Amino acid sequence: MSAPIGNALIGQSGGPTAVINQSLVGVIEGCLRSDRVKGVYGAVHGVEGVLGENLIDLGRESAATLEGVANTPCAALRSVRKKPTEEECARMLEVFQAHDIRYFFYIGGNDSAETAHILNQMAVDRSYDVRLFHVPKTIDNDLCVTDHCPGYGSAARFVASALMGDNEDNRSLGGIKVDVIMGRHAGWLTAASTLAKVHDEDGPHLVYVPEQAFDLERFGDEVSEIYSSLGRCVIAASEGIHDANGKLILESQEKDSHGNVQLSGTGALGDFLAGRLKEVLGEDTRIRADTFGYLQRSFADCVSEVDANEAREVGRMAARVATSGEYQHGSVIIKREEDPTYRASFEVTDLSNVAKNTKTLPAEFLSGHGGIAASFQDYARPLVGALRAPTHLSDYPVGTKD
Amino acid sequence: MSAPIGNALIGQSGGPTAVINQSLVGVIEGCLRSDRVKGVYGAVHGVEGVLGENLIDLGRESAATLEGVANTPCAALRSVRKKPTEEECARMLEVFQAHDIRYFFYIGGNDSAETAHILNQMAVDRSYDVRLFHVPKTIDNDLCVTDHCPGYGSAARFVASALMGDNEDNRSLGGIKVDVIMGRHAGWLTAASTLAKVHDEDGPHLVYVPEQAFDLERFGDEVSEIYSSLGRCVIAASEGIHDANGKLILESQEKDSHGNVQLSGTGALGDFLAGRLKEVLGEDTRIRADTFGYLQRSFADCVSEVDANEAREVGRMAARVATSGEYQHGSVIIKREEDPTYRASFEVTDLSNVAKNTKTLPAEFLSGHGGIAASFQDYARPLVGALRAPTHLSDYPVGTKD
Repeated sequence: MSAPIGNALIGQSGGPTAVINQSLVGVIEGCLRSDRVKGVYGAVHGVEGVLGENLIDLGRESAATLEGVANTPCAALRSVRKKPTEEECARMLEVFQAHDIRYFFYIGGNDSAETAHILNQMAVDRSYDVRLFHVPKTIDNDLCVTDHCPGYGSAARFVASALMGDNEDNRSLGGIKVDVIMGRHAGWLTAASTLAKVHDEDGPHLVYVPEQAFDLERFGDEVSEIYSSLGRCVIAASEGIHDANGKLILESQEKDSHGNVQLSGTGALGDFLAGRLKEVLGEDTRIRADTFGYLQRSFADCVSEVDANEAREVGRMAARVATSGEYQHGSVIIKREEDPTYRASFEVTDLSNVAKNTKTLPAEFLSGHGGIAASFQDYARPLVGALRAPTHLSDYPVGTKD
Repeated sequence: MSAPIGNALIGQSGGPTAVINQSLVGVIEGCLRSDRVKGVYGAVHGVEGVLGENLIDLGRESAATLEGVANTPCAALRSVRKKPTEEECARMLEVFQAHDIRYFFYIGGNDSAETAHILNQMAVDRSYDVRLFHVPKTIDNDLCVTDHCPGYGSAARFVASALMGDNEDNRSLGGIKVDVIMGRHAGWLTAASTLAKVHDEDGPHLVYVPEQAFDLERFGDEVSEIYSSLGRCVIAASEGIHDANGKLILESQEKDSHGNVQLSGTGALGDFLAGRLKEVLGEDTRIRADTFGYLQRSFADCVSEVDANEAREVGRMAARVATSGEYQHGSVIIKREEDPTYRASFEVTDLSNVAKNTKTLPAEFLSGHGGIAASFQDYARPLVGALRAPTHLSDYPVGTKD
């Protein structure tokens, strides 16, 4: 079926990333190059914008504005956390038809892929020819099929840089530092904290991810052991760590419309772990906790160049394969070429392969309770780019005289 | 009294900054250039290192190592939070004499200036000729006499960059965001959040600093008002905000040996304010809180160039005026020259002018409950350097059709 002629609509969904607008601009660029696309529109706040017909004309933006937007963090179209009901999906198709939308690009995570998948099935059933594409983004790096997700490299770079400074801070004053990092089901971002390690005694000394059951008792023992040998200990923990029964170590009550529990935007888990360590090591021990929070996904001054380029390219690729008619729907994935050095190539997979599912850290990247295998670093390094290496003094001793 | 010939000792104290090692290397460079200085030593963990004779030889470090150290955040000599007793000060002087220390440079805040001041008086009383200098550093920017403090510009740059991304994040998803920023007595760092504002509707929309009594009731009203007009609200609050009686809005129990209460390294204040807003606006309102924590002072990938250069120069200046005999003791201060554009010059003031005291935001920089005057930005901008400006879409509307 050749590609239809009509308008293209783009939406952004879920938690923003530092490079999600690169993908937006990539899709716009790809659409503007195609003779199948008449107008390029944006849906303000994703599906909400479609349902409320709150659409904006992206084709009128200057190239300079688009380049500026590409380098601005978070969702320029504004985002949404909403899973449309079947009724709402039907309404979305009506809006598509009213505006002659023949291409819909939804930039988001697995929830967005699912929305695109449902819309696609419904459009096929109704014989309305609209090409539905999912453009991947997530700092969580937990989408299936793809080697990694646009947005992850930049967030991982922020986490690694933050940990590097934080390790020096902890080395300066001693004591125990707990850092809570985003990731409810997958520990990809927390694992990136290990990229901060340069010297033997550098932290993070312990890394806890949701892929391993978290044992509060062992946690205390493991921290104690490192603290007694080094006089300090830096811990990186995912917000989604849970016990052997799958119960979150700390959960608040709020859920979004996808049924996800709120774990971010609160210091509760860090404070809980710090409190626990005070019980084990005594009230006088210097114990601090930081929760990296939304800075991980929105901090624009620490973007991975590889990530920014790839985020742009997945957008362009989606527009290209959609408007060429090569694919009628799908999700863009990144493949890793390693010969001779890291390079990304781009392919398309079926929406159903990406919808809803989550890819967690594979066993090969794990290394027992509190550990991440060194092989993870080979995976993550090219995505994050070259990192600053801290320099330490040689500590040449001056003999005692007094 | 001409400058004595002997060894120089350097220590670092208090909370680290991203550029405190620039000052360390500046002092080392200045000492190495002087024919009055034989050896250049470092005290590991500040006064603790002096008391325990844990000294290292900095003169043996290569120029490459020193340059690497200068660009590494936090205290390369390792830091300490300790106010020596009179007995310990006497012991420190004994160690100075045993190692022929004739110059002691203490890099730190007003507590460190006080320690240098006490040591100086004691040395004068005992007729031991050691030149005591305070080299300023603090992200809090709260030292007296000086126009601003080395370390502030970089922390302020981090805060402004973080707020800029966070404002885009809040714009993407709506709701209310509370950001808690360091500063127990002074709001300089929190005020730097206003540098993130580029467009009219950009956050932070409300800024609360310790210089103004915080009214929980008014806080709720002010947030409600902005939330109903914009559908979102970004709030920056200092960790040290307190009520009209001076009682901290939230304080934990831990104090350091200077009597300072622990406010950092916990998400408690942010969570408290978010909880309060849920009471006012309802449990269903999207309200999140982040505490920027130690990243503000240790994040090396967002350093102000002006700040790094000035931090280096205050170190060089201290060594220069000490070893030339121009001053027998003192604290280096920065003066602002504004003709035709910003430039710093450096002078020396008496230790007693800097010891213990705190400089808070002057009234001219304040603008009612929750506000910072625009004049503050003229003060802060040159210290922070050029910041990224976010680009927004023009939001050209597409007419409704359905």
